[in-house]
Amino acid sequence: MKDVLIVVYDGVTLLDVAGPLQVLHAPQAYRTRLASPDGAPVTTDVGVPLAVDTALSAVRTPPDTLLVPGDLGLRSADGMPDGVVDQLTRIAPDVRRVASVCGGALLLAAAGLLDGRRATTHWALCEVLAQRFPAVTVEPDAIVVRDGSLLTSAGVTAGIDLSLALLEEDLGPDVARTVARWLVVFLQRPGGQAQYGIPKPGPVPRNPALRAAVDAVAADPAAPHTLESLAQTAAVSARHLGRLFRRELNATPAQYVESTRLAAARTLLESSDAVLPAVARQSGFGSDETLRRVFLKHLGIPPHAYRERFHPFGRNDR
Amino acid sequence: MKDVLIVVYDGVTLLDVAGPLQVLHAPQAYRTRLASPDGAPVTTDVGVPLAVDTALSAVRTPPDTLLVPGDLGLRSADGMPDGVVDQLTRIAPDVRRVASVCGGALLLAAAGLLDGRRATTHWALCEVLAQRFPAVTVEPDAIVVRDGSLLTSAGVTAGIDLSLALLEEDLGPDVARTVARWLVVFLQRPGGQAQYGIPKPGPVPRNPALRAAVDAVAADPAAPHTLESLAQTAAVSARHLGRLFRRELNATPAQYVESTRLAAARTLLESSDAVLPAVARQSGFGSDETLRRVFLKHLGIPPHAYRERFHPFGRNDR
Repeated sequence: MKDVLIVVYDGVTLLDVAGPLQVLHAPQAYRTRLASPDGAPVTTDVGVPLAVDTALSAVRTPPDTLLVPGDLGLRSADGMPDGVVDQLTRIAPDVRRVASVCGGALLLAAAGLLDGRRATTHWALCEVLAQRFPAVTVEPDAIVVRDGSLLTSAGVTAGIDLSLALLEEDLGPDVARTVARWLVVFLQRPGGQAQYGIPKPGPVPRNPALRAAVDAVAADPAAPHTLESLAQTAAVSARHLGRLFRRELNATPAQYVESTRLAAARTLLESSDAVLPAVARQSGFGSDETLRRVFLKHLGIPPHAYRERFHPFGRNDR
Repeated sequence: MKDVLIVVYDGVTLLDVAGPLQVLHAPQAYRTRLASPDGAPVTTDVGVPLAVDTALSAVRTPPDTLLVPGDLGLRSADGMPDGVVDQLTRIAPDVRRVASVCGGALLLAAAGLLDGRRATTHWALCEVLAQRFPAVTVEPDAIVVRDGSLLTSAGVTAGIDLSLALLEEDLGPDVARTVARWLVVFLQRPGGQAQYGIPKPGPVPRNPALRAAVDAVAADPAAPHTLESLAQTAAVSARHLGRLFRRELNATPAQYVESTRLAAARTLLESSDAVLPAVARQSGFGSDETLRRVFLKHLGIPPHAYRERFHPFGRNDR
């Protein structure tokens, strides 16, 4: 039996804990224990209490696998739970394998365990992880990232994918696939994490000229925006506008227009029944083919698959 | 705030409970309570205890929604937890909406709540549900079935899909989609439940002639099996063999051969790297086009999508 220690704390996301517990329980090859910093029960984010098996501070024998679930509150540096990072720093060096779900990556990073490593976290936390811990190579589109004996995963339900990856590593693909089937999930999800992110326009720029240009794109993404037309709108030179885009938005004007059009197309695919050529036209991509190319480039999936996944229920007899 | 009462009992599948709790917690529009038959804490299937808010027997005010998670142990009639069915029978008639996850459908059925209704459950329990409760119209391929104010769902992780359907019904598609994104799941899964079932040959028949025919198909699904060749193998008349197939296996010989070939093709797609034409040939379908047609007919998805979902990890940088 492999010993898996799951780190829990007040505010931990219930599903980040329950997904791995369910997956790891199935093949009867693991002993899972929940550990809080001081051994006291914790209250999950949904208000349900979790009894724990041990205190992190009492752990003397390193487990085979240390698994750290997340909490979206970890996005703020003040949101770090007391005592977890210290104990991770103490325990992790002797552990064979370290894994995180969702925001758990921020706890690993704070304990220095991600320095110089490739890692992922919830799409909404990727930027925070990269900014707060520049020594980490963040992979924002991945569902699970394996870097040697370190595995990190995307948000919440990705803890199920992560745990299936652990099973596959330990017990082979047949066992992992069988467990996936019983839980009624895929062994391998189609596409990366980017498709789950909320389509939204970029941040509101501070510079008034840049803001005028950005507002014009947002107001009508399908208009034929060029650097020149945007410069005219902003009443600055094209050269200056290009500089403003790069400095404040970290993008060229063309990249900014493309990402605004992508957000518009995603919203149309999600909430309208417009056919693909109409979506392409209304979002400013002109042709199906351009729409498809941009979707594959940014989200790794074609537009029709995107619609299938994020358009509301109600078809298929439901 | 809508009141959602989640029924729990010893042996309940943790993820059947945690998925809905996580989804319903997100929009802050629900008050969720866990209720066990007598109000005592329960032990989930993974051994983690769950504290409960109330006893089912103490429920006087009917909740808006009654949600019943499952337990794979419910497949046996002896596995029904004490007191749950009685209380469901008492409480459900005054409840606005009733929903189940996974094997929870068997508890609803035992309380008579599925009579004359369309419903689904875990793929491994669909036959049990249909046999034990013939008044229920079982939909074995569905992830979520809505029949008026009754919603039932497929196994384990389908509780997440079910709860998103409840959000969509109550709060609209935008809220449901946003919650899906935060949890990093699709609002709508591609394909039905059948694709998750374990590919396996049919039951072993009792009749020795039929058994000889079936063994010949299993030994070499790609051979050119016809009613005549199988009758020769079985040393009976074609007419008699056809009768045996229908009586014991509820299929024509051609249907039986097709389903054996489908199981062979699924196994090849899952565990080998053979290209599609080779898979088609080795499983007896001859051409890519036939392979594709049979996959769409039985699983609702094309072969390449099947491989993408059930072939092991390791590609995509993992």
